[in-house]
Amino acid sequence: MKTVGIGLLGFGTVGVGVVMGLRKNQGLLENRTGLKLELRRIADIDVERDRGVSVPPGVLNSDAESVVASPEVDIVIELIGGLNAARNLITQALQRGKPVVTANKALLAEHGAELFKLAEANRTDIFFEASVGGGIPLIRSLREGLVSNHIQSIYGILNGTCNYILTRMEQNRMSFATALKEAKKAGFAEADPALDVDGIDTAHKAVILASLAYGFNVPMREVAVEGIRGLDALDLRYALELGYRIKMLAVIEQENGDVAVRVCPTLVPMEHIMASVSGVFNAVLIEGDEVGDVLCYGKGAGRDPTASAILSDVVDAARNLVFHAARRAPGFVNYNPHGKVKAVGESDVRYYLRLTLLDKPGVFGQIAAVLGRHSISIASILQKENIAGRQVPVVIITHHGKEKAFRAALDELDTLPVVGAKTVRFRIEDF
Amino acid sequence: MKTVGIGLLGFGTVGVGVVMGLRKNQGLLENRTGLKLELRRIADIDVERDRGVSVPPGVLNSDAESVVASPEVDIVIELIGGLNAARNLITQALQRGKPVVTANKALLAEHGAELFKLAEANRTDIFFEASVGGGIPLIRSLREGLVSNHIQSIYGILNGTCNYILTRMEQNRMSFATALKEAKKAGFAEADPALDVDGIDTAHKAVILASLAYGFNVPMREVAVEGIRGLDALDLRYALELGYRIKMLAVIEQENGDVAVRVCPTLVPMEHIMASVSGVFNAVLIEGDEVGDVLCYGKGAGRDPTASAILSDVVDAARNLVFHAARRAPGFVNYNPHGKVKAVGESDVRYYLRLTLLDKPGVFGQIAAVLGRHSISIASILQKENIAGRQVPVVIITHHGKEKAFRAALDELDTLPVVGAKTVRFRIEDF
Repeated sequence: MKTVGIGLLGFGTVGVGVVMGLRKNQGLLENRTGLKLELRRIADIDVERDRGVSVPPGVLNSDAESVVASPEVDIVIELIGGLNAARNLITQALQRGKPVVTANKALLAEHGAELFKLAEANRTDIFFEASVGGGIPLIRSLREGLVSNHIQSIYGILNGTCNYILTRMEQNRMSFATALKEAKKAGFAEADPALDVDGIDTAHKAVILASLAYGFNVPMREVAVEGIRGLDALDLRYALELGYRIKMLAVIEQENGDVAVRVCPTLVPMEHIMASVSGVFNAVLIEGDEVGDVLCYGKGAGRDPTASAILSDVVDAARNLVFHAARRAPGFVNYNPHGKVKAVGESDVRYYLRLTLLDKPGVFGQIAAVLGRHSISIASILQKENIAGRQVPVVIITHHGKEKAFRAALDELDTLPVVGAKTVRFRIEDF
Repeated sequence: MKTVGIGLLGFGTVGVGVVMGLRKNQGLLENRTGLKLELRRIADIDVERDRGVSVPPGVLNSDAESVVASPEVDIVIELIGGLNAARNLITQALQRGKPVVTANKALLAEHGAELFKLAEANRTDIFFEASVGGGIPLIRSLREGLVSNHIQSIYGILNGTCNYILTRMEQNRMSFATALKEAKKAGFAEADPALDVDGIDTAHKAVILASLAYGFNVPMREVAVEGIRGLDALDLRYALELGYRIKMLAVIEQENGDVAVRVCPTLVPMEHIMASVSGVFNAVLIEGDEVGDVLCYGKGAGRDPTASAILSDVVDAARNLVFHAARRAPGFVNYNPHGKVKAVGESDVRYYLRLTLLDKPGVFGQIAAVLGRHSISIASILQKENIAGRQVPVVIITHHGKEKAFRAALDELDTLPVVGAKTVRFRIEDF
């Protein structure tokens, strides 16, 4: 049986999961692949902490560069996260022709172009199944399973923290602050939750999926991002009454060759399967021109699911090494040099609007007139009882229109004397 | 750019889809893979019919063996279906060391053991993504994406015809016969629907998934199969009232090293995502020891989705040829010689029972006594009004018990003088 040597950079939660998974399922992996995967070096700045898993003496050290350079290491797993150190180490591994397995979505979203080019120049591979959707075999499905499809759209619930918070807010009528506090207690949110709740993490993942699907480097700065921090539990309730759930959604849509990429809290029709994705689960709905809709669903984070994805990549890398088949199915192929991200204003959209109106006769006529002037037509209206003195919340579900028409209409509405507060708006996704 | 020659056996609906897909997305496939996939030979008994797609002269002929033998054909796609002819042709291809791509679930379920052995002996591959779940990249996910996982269970809605019929029966309070007629009209059921509605097709797919997941050849004859032909719309309605949907489910569960495989109409809790799978869609829920639950969902049949899966396999086969990497990730590895299918009686189950009782005092006590004697306890009861003279339907949802205890209890119940008809029973799956 051929043996492949593995070097692990970063011995945190997921690193421990990888070591435990390799050990627990070693026999199974050998049976299925005919290969022995041997963990030979681990680097971490903390070489003392008891992680509940023992490693042979000499395996763990604090010099990551020596792990990358070691002739005993054939495959490098990068789990240290962050940008600079990870980028340097991955660069060194690729320059040595060693395949890299990483879960580092931020790094790929920010510096993927450079790293993928380097992998190509050195005839080796970067694998990144764990970077999007945790344990869900999503990258592999998109890259290989749907290889013959033009991808028309990708819709993703890609951040477990956001989805957990939104689920709790809806089910328990909690405020965002309370749900966030609870998520932290349950271990589903970081001490600093900004990356998650402000949508950055979802945007990183959207960039990776969009680049993979459309064959060009989608720049992170061109993704329109809106987080869930400002969300009022009231809107989750009204949405529910109107037959929708609010989900933190990554939307990637192809139109006339350009690609629109956005991340924002979005209304999803209750009867759609994406509305059933609750708690820390992730789901991605991919529409291909041949296959139609395919949905993948599973745990988007956590030690063992992420380790499962990492190990599937390690097997892929090991098989390529043993068969001398590096770059057999490259992680990213830059084949679409004219690909570009579409300006958001051109998108065709539909909105949920919550207006705060003065409780006076004729007010609604003024609102309707403004919307009409911008060619926005109304699909349904929910007028709630007066709950705030003389101000009344009125929820409008619109039909489709251009994003820029909505922006202009809302700017105008919010200047009307009968409008008592900035109008709350969410996009509706009908899939 | 390297060119790989393809031979297609069977120019029916899916074959036409493959030709159209190859043609339409040729540029995309070349961009993504760096390979040119060239369709060089097609065999079909009908060489005259206009299929709405033109092929160059000399490509289409009626001699399938010559296509397999042609030195211009590097990869053989088998889409003729059925057992004998397909088996012979695949055997010839494998003996020539040519990789085979097939959608033939019946053949793999019945003769997979022999064919996989032959592929191994000839150092080549059989790919079968299209055999289960149509366009869903399911086989690939199980074989590669979840390679590091012990699979604990697989639950599948694998037959679009059954799922369409059940969805229509529930939504429109239709009888089985009416829904079947409608499915035929809509092109979702064959003229002879037996293979689908009697559960054979689902069982074929379950055999493939179970063999792949557990590393031994699961014999088709050991799968417990029950179809949907006898289903009464009444039970779909009662199930709904109790919070369940009835789905045609393949259940593959590992217990103490043995594997239970069964196919039957099953109650699924409304709030579970599997209950949201409606119409001709398929879904498979896989539980792995590392990854937890992963669900894949999509169109399980149809020309283009099936062609999408076939083409993904063709790309895999072509990459293996070009990289001289045959058997890099074998379709089936027989690593578990002691694997066996568990006797159904030993399974731990829960039931929906619809009893037809005489409308007399004390009757229910007799029923409860029989269930109690067999250690079966009742979770909930739905007693409907008298709808058939002096007979009353009573629905019982039970707690868990051994399958064989239920069988014994039901045999006894149905002999009681107060029971007016054979008791209708469905398993409940809580996942």
